[in-house]
Amino acid sequence: MESVENLIIRLGKNAKNAAKSLRSTKTQTKNTALTNIAKQIKQNKKTLLSANQKDLAQGKNAGLNDALLDRLMLNDERINAIIKSLNQIIALPDPIGEITDLRFRPSGIQVGKMRVPLGVLGIIYESRPNVTIDAGALCLKSGNALILRGGSEAIHSNLGLYQCIKQGLLDAGLDENCAQLIQTTNREVVGELTRAKDYIDAIIPRGGKSLVEAISKNAKVQIIKHLHGVCHTYIDKDADTQKAISIAFNAKTRRYGVCNATETLLVHASAADRILPELIAQYLAKGVALRGCEKTMQLSDQITAATQQDWDTEYLSAILSIRIVSSMSEAIEHIEKHGSGHTESIISENYTSGRRFIAEVDSASVMINASTSFADGFEYGLGAEIGISTDKFHVRGPVGLEGLTSQKYIVLGDGHIRA
Amino acid sequence: MESVENLIIRLGKNAKNAAKSLRSTKTQTKNTALTNIAKQIKQNKKTLLSANQKDLAQGKNAGLNDALLDRLMLNDERINAIIKSLNQIIALPDPIGEITDLRFRPSGIQVGKMRVPLGVLGIIYESRPNVTIDAGALCLKSGNALILRGGSEAIHSNLGLYQCIKQGLLDAGLDENCAQLIQTTNREVVGELTRAKDYIDAIIPRGGKSLVEAISKNAKVQIIKHLHGVCHTYIDKDADTQKAISIAFNAKTRRYGVCNATETLLVHASAADRILPELIAQYLAKGVALRGCEKTMQLSDQITAATQQDWDTEYLSAILSIRIVSSMSEAIEHIEKHGSGHTESIISENYTSGRRFIAEVDSASVMINASTSFADGFEYGLGAEIGISTDKFHVRGPVGLEGLTSQKYIVLGDGHIRA
Repeated sequence: MESVENLIIRLGKNAKNAAKSLRSTKTQTKNTALTNIAKQIKQNKKTLLSANQKDLAQGKNAGLNDALLDRLMLNDERINAIIKSLNQIIALPDPIGEITDLRFRPSGIQVGKMRVPLGVLGIIYESRPNVTIDAGALCLKSGNALILRGGSEAIHSNLGLYQCIKQGLLDAGLDENCAQLIQTTNREVVGELTRAKDYIDAIIPRGGKSLVEAISKNAKVQIIKHLHGVCHTYIDKDADTQKAISIAFNAKTRRYGVCNATETLLVHASAADRILPELIAQYLAKGVALRGCEKTMQLSDQITAATQQDWDTEYLSAILSIRIVSSMSEAIEHIEKHGSGHTESIISENYTSGRRFIAEVDSASVMINASTSFADGFEYGLGAEIGISTDKFHVRGPVGLEGLTSQKYIVLGDGHIRA
Repeated sequence: MESVENLIIRLGKNAKNAAKSLRSTKTQTKNTALTNIAKQIKQNKKTLLSANQKDLAQGKNAGLNDALLDRLMLNDERINAIIKSLNQIIALPDPIGEITDLRFRPSGIQVGKMRVPLGVLGIIYESRPNVTIDAGALCLKSGNALILRGGSEAIHSNLGLYQCIKQGLLDAGLDENCAQLIQTTNREVVGELTRAKDYIDAIIPRGGKSLVEAISKNAKVQIIKHLHGVCHTYIDKDADTQKAISIAFNAKTRRYGVCNATETLLVHASAADRILPELIAQYLAKGVALRGCEKTMQLSDQITAATQQDWDTEYLSAILSIRIVSSMSEAIEHIEKHGSGHTESIISENYTSGRRFIAEVDSASVMINASTSFADGFEYGLGAEIGISTDKFHVRGPVGLEGLTSQKYIVLGDGHIRA
């Protein structure tokens, strides 16, 4: 049997070759392949659903909880959503080859920047089988060769979906190795992938904080990190009451299990009496468990005491921590200390407070008078996202097609030599 | 005595605090500090030159070769060049806070990107004392706190120059820890710096390939790599004879010891007889040693045989390797295999060849009919550069102010909640 090391070298070499040809693959060819993949998925819906049934049955036997089984599950609706997302990616402009800022310099040369693929990307993901197609489509459109490593619990679903990608690539006359799926469920593969820097330009882990941290720890390959979201909404002393209530309510309750949900509400002391009683009532009516600082607890006997740990916790559930602060500086300091650099929003009608908040808060997304739930590639106009980077390096915030590219300088001369 | 570990933690904490205040430091204040630094250098020229004399004397005793001593040396002219470069950086627009692409989305929110500092940068460099000021100025202007680690051979010069930075910062009312110089010459410091990811956002090594590789090997902190330049000039079958000769000559002979000098000349077989004899005569007249493939050797008996190793070598001296290729594909393949991804240029009047070359060659700079010597931050209009990145991640090619920054998303709403 092939060793894990040799497997990764073989896949890596295939991917490097494919990446070379993808550098100058025409937009039309890439779109044709994406259209073919959508077609394949439509034609093979039954096969895909029955492969998914196998994963679900094995998952139940293995004792996966309901939340995990739900993430694993495919049905008609979800397959249609996958096809819809493919069509959205087809409709996006091709980032590759775009030349910007092409300007004449005093020497007479003309210098600009051309957008180019990163090369070979690895995606390491858990359960959700739709990532196979979403990642496959984003990488193909951005001219990157891709190595997919899905969770063992989704192996039959992923194999089925990968078959659609492969056929779609071949029918468009492209190298089938533009996307490769690792089929062994051997766990050593992940470590080997993250060390294969001769073959892989970057790895994107898609999963919980612990997966991302485990992968990053000994990685030699560049990682595009989607870590966790401990997001804050700060209600300033000059907040509009109605905006504050509706935004803070939406930011927590729109969906609980997502990284852009607000986990901690910070309220300026001089706005607390005006805004918190009504807001607290709405949260409690919706079934949100509230944990507060001492001052907050005085506003309702249904608020339990927040511990130090609460301020650092991404609940991903119907729990919210609330802290009353005596100044905006205290709010910013709290965010600096406890936030994860994902998304923070200030609710204020004060011009200077708004400007200060966006200048001083060091997060991937900083908002004024808007719900943190908006932190999302679709909402920002990227068309699709492969994750949300909380890193400052290379790409920050929702990662769309452009985040999967690099640039090179183009110099056009007419016989120019340097003095 | 303070342990190396504690030293780095102390400097790291200082730097993080300084970085926090730098996020929203006004352009005018940063420029005032830079002006102060220039003033300090002018006022203390004598002290700086005598500190440098100490380094030079110790270097001579330690047996440093002439090239190293030359890099270490300061004189009136070089100090004026340092001041000139400070003035150039003062004149550059402040990248921080720039908001671009601020557009309304269908939901009604307005989304844009704001340019922000990376945070804390570490610079590890050798000999040249001017790096202390150049790096200090670029980091300050781009709002980053800086930890400098110069070579032990330049310690007196660096301490003198650092004193000017410190005073300049203080006189502008800035935290003196915006820039810190590591004063111990203990070698463990470098390893500790590259592991201090809780305090340092990125490290920029400035030095030879071996220094950069040693630093990158076990680094936990993000590295902005300036590696080596094995640059190619490719003379196409449709090259203009005069352009080919003057560009290829300039690209090799303008300066030998620089990373953008052409090290290998590739010539299409059908252009070789037309162009190479005259070009070879010019190189030989200039004293360039030529190493060639078999076909090239037939053109002159003063060309020695190039070994396999030659094609991978950055000579940084008056040596050039020449290979005659039978097609443009062979040239691109040679570059793919032997190039370092720095800079390559095609000499051709053919439209399709030019387009193909810039699409397929995967280097930080790709040129048409221009000398590879142009690969430089000043020539590209960046105003200054801290190095040339041969990485595809984050920043590629000459790294100016913008390469030292990141972006964050700004979302402006008016009470917007997400459906």
